[in-house]
Amino acid sequence: MYKVKVYVTLRESVLDPQGGAVKSALHAMDYQEVTDVRIGKYMELQLESTEKLEERVKEMCEKLLANTVIEDYRFEVEEVVPS
Amino acid sequence: MYKVKVYVTLRESVLDPQGGAVKSALHAMDYQEVTDVRIGKYMELQLESTEKLEERVKEMCEKLLANTVIEDYRFEVEEVVPS
Repeated sequence: MYKVKVYVTLRESVLDPQGGAVKSALHAMDYQEVTDVRIGKYMELQLESTEKLEERVKEMCEKLLANTVIEDYRFEVEEVVPS
Repeated sequence: MYKVKVYVTLRESVLDPQGGAVKSALHAMDYQEVTDVRIGKYMELQLESTEKLEERVKEMCEKLLANTVIEDYRFEVEEVVPS
């Protein structure tokens, strides 16, 4: 069994209105030290072991989990040792 | 300058319909090895250095970035060395 952590973030060149809104809210709450906020998706997948696991996870990201036109993705694979 | 990575995930006990939908979609695309999907938020904050930085980030999470009734959060602080 494997656990895959996927991080999907907007490309630097893409405007992040959601991040801007959170930044304004933090400023309104007196957290002036915040200079930038970028918001993305974090996904945890559990997978049974399979051949070419990394290749297939890459495919899942490219086809479904990330919109590669405006988003970047990266992932980390961890083996889950049954307790 | 500091970069803070914030991970917000639904508590284990909370149903994740979005994750369920993604799992079904992955199965429909023949990725049967996926047994579970949990979806959360990933945020990158940039902050100027300030006193009690970790304490203030914790406050930001508790007050705004996470809904602590149904979500857990964790964060990592990195110092950004100006290039």
